[in-house]
Amino acid sequence: MGGTGSTRNERDSRVPARAGALVAMRATHIFGAGDIRVIDVPDPAIQASTDAVVRVSRACVCGSDLHPYHSLAPTTEGVSIGHEFIGVVEEIGADVTTVTPGDFVIAPFAVSCGVCEFCRTGLQTSCVDGGFWNDGQLGTTGGQAEAVRVPLADGTLVAVPGVTASTDETLLASLLTLSDVYGTGWHAAIRGGVTPGSTVTVIGDGAVGLLAVLSARQLGAARIVLMGRHELRTDLGREFGATDVVAARGPEGIAAVRELTAGGSSIVLEAVGHLPAYEQAVGIVRPGGVISRVGVPQYEEAPVGFGSLFGHNITLTGGPAPVRAYIERLLPAVLDGSVQPGRVFDRTVSLSDTPTAYKAMDARQALKVMVRP
Amino acid sequence: MGGTGSTRNERDSRVPARAGALVAMRATHIFGAGDIRVIDVPDPAIQASTDAVVRVSRACVCGSDLHPYHSLAPTTEGVSIGHEFIGVVEEIGADVTTVTPGDFVIAPFAVSCGVCEFCRTGLQTSCVDGGFWNDGQLGTTGGQAEAVRVPLADGTLVAVPGVTASTDETLLASLLTLSDVYGTGWHAAIRGGVTPGSTVTVIGDGAVGLLAVLSARQLGAARIVLMGRHELRTDLGREFGATDVVAARGPEGIAAVRELTAGGSSIVLEAVGHLPAYEQAVGIVRPGGVISRVGVPQYEEAPVGFGSLFGHNITLTGGPAPVRAYIERLLPAVLDGSVQPGRVFDRTVSLSDTPTAYKAMDARQALKVMVRP
Repeated sequence: MGGTGSTRNERDSRVPARAGALVAMRATHIFGAGDIRVIDVPDPAIQASTDAVVRVSRACVCGSDLHPYHSLAPTTEGVSIGHEFIGVVEEIGADVTTVTPGDFVIAPFAVSCGVCEFCRTGLQTSCVDGGFWNDGQLGTTGGQAEAVRVPLADGTLVAVPGVTASTDETLLASLLTLSDVYGTGWHAAIRGGVTPGSTVTVIGDGAVGLLAVLSARQLGAARIVLMGRHELRTDLGREFGATDVVAARGPEGIAAVRELTAGGSSIVLEAVGHLPAYEQAVGIVRPGGVISRVGVPQYEEAPVGFGSLFGHNITLTGGPAPVRAYIERLLPAVLDGSVQPGRVFDRTVSLSDTPTAYKAMDARQALKVMVRP
Repeated sequence: MGGTGSTRNERDSRVPARAGALVAMRATHIFGAGDIRVIDVPDPAIQASTDAVVRVSRACVCGSDLHPYHSLAPTTEGVSIGHEFIGVVEEIGADVTTVTPGDFVIAPFAVSCGVCEFCRTGLQTSCVDGGFWNDGQLGTTGGQAEAVRVPLADGTLVAVPGVTASTDETLLASLLTLSDVYGTGWHAAIRGGVTPGSTVTVIGDGAVGLLAVLSARQLGAARIVLMGRHELRTDLGREFGATDVVAARGPEGIAAVRELTAGGSSIVLEAVGHLPAYEQAVGIVRPGGVISRVGVPQYEEAPVGFGSLFGHNITLTGGPAPVRAYIERLLPAVLDGSVQPGRVFDRTVSLSDTPTAYKAMDARQALKVMVRP
């Protein structure tokens, strides 16, 4: 794979040598709305001394991947996609010190240096040198692929000792959620200020919403209302800790939650990202309460004036989850099996079948699909 | 004044008897944009056993009073106006226990019961039985008048022992700010999360903005940037604790604050209420930071999406200040003179001259005008 790095074999003779540097690999690209293809692309290589190359063990499709799947303008070259993966470090740059070839790692959905002001305070998504896998800025490629170049590997990757690519499938699934959805649900709950005894309403029965339920439960919420209409999902939500499910939405759903919570929910976790979900949040939040958003907003303007947020001192918070900040906190219960966030995966496809994963999630036939390269 | 109450004279023989029940008093009404008149209205009277009637010692004009002054549609009957006053209790309903005729009181700008969930948690502006002086709901009249009927007197009024209507003018001015502007500036700082060492930017050099500066200073902020272009006001802001003043606004002002704060202010207190001030707040807030609004929004929709709030996990908070919650905390330093929030008053008029107070504030010839009935 070339570059400035040392290969795993220089450091760990137990690991079999690769047959030779790949010159091409398979990777998922999006060519426009509804048009997902798995194509040949150049193999990733170390470009900077702080890079690592990670061979992907498991990746998956995110609810936010469906946004370009719905709306991307056609492009002849395609755009690399996927931002959640776990895998094995294959090669590292000369300055990488915290991971070594052969390490099993979780890759958070944001690249972060680990040392800037924002990384130090747990806001790795605002890292001054970081970015997202597919934002073009870092020249990185997506995780729904055989391998990925990871910039700023020391700040970004988290090694998980004792785990390998052939570890128990249930555990791998749960580890994979730490790259995004579990940490994102946790972020919603943390930003929402969930503490023991809280009353929380979660809007959205997607993987993030369900893991926001799990997170709220872990943080001690006493009452967790889940707003969702897909029964298989809300059933899982109940297993994760939801005490009530409201299938109605709009004014009817708002009225139902306001009645259940005797006047509104002090904490609302919004895990959808569409404007009606925001409006629903405004409708059900209690005076003085908090709306914590983690669904990527598909709108720029929204009501914030006297009649929506201001009049009753509603706080609006949230954003892209700095999942890197939460992995150490969440990992032990995942490793010992006391939580199983990986239960959000209800289908697994091979890399070549990634297009069917998008179709199934878009049609809500699958909650969340794992991709096995 | 009739009603179900006991008069002051029944309780305190040192107070001279009133000549007789008033049948009319002078009160300020607004008849449309730019049309303020002082007219005869019925004298307020006890209507419920929880009411008090307060004879106004000092009132004033609020920046938010200028909003209807700019935009109210013409009305033949006029609308009572004014929500900041201090005065002497003249009569109380049979169930009032915490104030008694003769007591000098501060009247917060919101009526509150003091016992509901929201009052108990310090969010008196969301009191289930309360409201604002002029919202029509409570049938109350405004404070720019000779007297006011105060519903829910036990929850609303705060007696200040040792003060009378003839107390030193400087102290009266500072006490008057506790009915709104000082508590509102304090609320901005509290909601913004100001702690010792904070870097804070205050948008707006009106009375609330200046008292947000004072509040941030009291809470230990190390750096306080005041955005305002009226030099007399920003000079007072410096005396209240501003360490820097930025006169520019829009992109130029944003660039200046971002440079002063090396990339943005973690805490932004927005004390204006117009959309450009909101946009300015979004422009200067640091990733992970807080925008705390106390200027009543003159807009309903505003940017909250990925490019404004979400992308960098910005928190938007604030609302009408529950000043009732802050009076006990702020009063001692006012009484001992160690803070002088009353310095925001730079003019005093008689009640009959209230229209000139609006003119002067609207023309920015006066910062804040006190009204002496």
